[in-house]
Amino acid sequence: MKTTAVFALLLLVCRVSADPKDLLKDVAASLAKLKVEVAFLKTHAQVHKVTFSASLVSGDETTLGPFNTHTPMRFKYVPTNIGNAYNPDTGIFTAPVKGVYQFQWYVGAQGGVANTAVALIKGSEVIFSALEAQNHGYQTSSQGVALTLEAGDTVFLRLWKGSRVYDNGNHHTTFSGNLLYTI
Amino acid sequence: MKTTAVFALLLLVCRVSADPKDLLKDVAASLAKLKVEVAFLKTHAQVHKVTFSASLVSGDETTLGPFNTHTPMRFKYVPTNIGNAYNPDTGIFTAPVKGVYQFQWYVGAQGGVANTAVALIKGSEVIFSALEAQNHGYQTSSQGVALTLEAGDTVFLRLWKGSRVYDNGNHHTTFSGNLLYTI
Amino acid sequence: MKTTAVFALLLLVCRVSADPKDLLKDVAASLAKLKVEVAFLKTHAQVHKVTFSASLVSGDETTLGPFNTHTPMRFKYVPTNIGNAYNPDTGIFTAPVKGVYQFQWYVGAQGGVANTAVALIKGSEVIFSALEAQNHGYQTSSQGVALTLEAGDTVFLRLWKGSRVYDNGNHHTTFSGNLLYTI
Repeated sequence: MKTTAVFALLLLVCRVSADPKDLLKDVAASLAKLKVEVAFLKTHAQVHKVTFSASLVSGDETTLGPFNTHTPMRFKYVPTNIGNAYNPDTGIFTAPVKGVYQFQWYVGAQGGVANTAVALIKGSEVIFSALEAQNHGYQTSSQGVALTLEAGDTVFLRLWKGSRVYDNGNHHTTFSGNLLYTI
Repeated sequence: MKTTAVFALLLLVCRVSADPKDLLKDVAASLAKLKVEVAFLKTHAQVHKVTFSASLVSGDETTLGPFNTHTPMRFKYVPTNIGNAYNPDTGIFTAPVKGVYQFQWYVGAQGGVANTAVALIKGSEVIFSALEAQNHGYQTSSQGVALTLEAGDTVFLRLWKGSRVYDNGNHHTTFSGNLLYTI
Repeated sequence: MKTTAVFALLLLVCRVSADPKDLLKDVAASLAKLKVEVAFLKTHAQVHKVTFSASLVSGDETTLGPFNTHTPMRFKYVPTNIGNAYNPDTGIFTAPVKGVYQFQWYVGAQGGVANTAVALIKGSEVIFSALEAQNHGYQTSSQGVALTLEAGDTVFLRLWKGSRVYDNGNHHTTFSGNLLYTI
């Protein structure tokens, strides 16, 4: 009888711990599945924050160009520079991670003297170009592109030779960029 | 012998439950790590959906301006307004959360009578401006910016005094915005 | 005494397994909560990568139009086509998933002969339009919009009848698009 009672107790212990063990198996399996999903999210979600917007000058009315050579543009007024990937001293944006980036630029100047032509350069390659040429008034153009950059790749805006842009405190000639997602 | 048998059984119970306990420790540790990763993802991933696109009018050919004072613009045709942060009655976009937002606007009108000048205003501050001035034809300009907004911050487009814009059912003068990510 | 010893041992087993069982309950509860959070992240985070940028031609100087009917535009130079949703053979972008998409286009041509008018078409509906008309020089316009697309919805750019665009190896007339997030 004593032995029977002990066995009954042992069975009770086993039965009681049977549910937790099953639960534990389920929990471990769910956790493993969730780990995969989180790893996917970490890889695919937009976890890096890189965004800048800049205009040529902070306030003083400025006309840049025309020059007789291509000239890198430095946008000195920088209200937004999340991640500090844009350098106002050089005008160069350096990709902090491999990813797909989006850039937009908006340019203008008085017409007549010269056209307004500004190209996005990656390394030394012309990507896309903004251009307008009117013989009077105030001419503007814009351009935008999404492109894949390796970590360390650089882009900047080039004022085309013989071209000019204008800016003042209302911020007309501007350059913005954003990391869309890492790859 | 009976006692030995009972002890053997107890040892068996202990051994069987030893693996689950180790597994449980591993599961608990993995879970704690995963919690941190999910919290990071929640903070950094783009979990809020706020996007709008609007044009000045839904159909009737309309020229707005020139006025002798700055005038807030109301874009009444709103094909996209995810999150309802843009109010078509006032033309004002109110940031629902602290984050980095991107705005683009595209404006145009017949030249000659007036220029076409439209600035994005945050509160009462001029952020960036679109401008074109030609003495004939149909002139257009555009502008875009990414900027950090606190929850409750407002932005709208201002038609500059002495300026005008045009729109019709093909939707030429438009205003779009998007939350890039929360911060 | 033997029986007492057995009961003491059983109590020990029960006590030892009591902490793990409480821990297991906590772990199971945390896991359930985490599952909900990950499901939310998966639904709301930007996990799909769809981005393209294209210009009309890869190199040879090209003027397209004016034609006496509306003409779909094929942008044949495609430096970016993540997700291959844009088809360079047809110029058609097909939404791979239901979501909110952003499109930008930048167009230009020599003035005088014709205006430059390019509309984004969803199915057969005019969404937003870029237009500039100057009687000389080089005229440009641009446009952008965010809109909700069902999986399988198509958009393309239409060169308006009587209108023309220009492109060369510096890539002036361009079309870009991006999935902002799924819904």
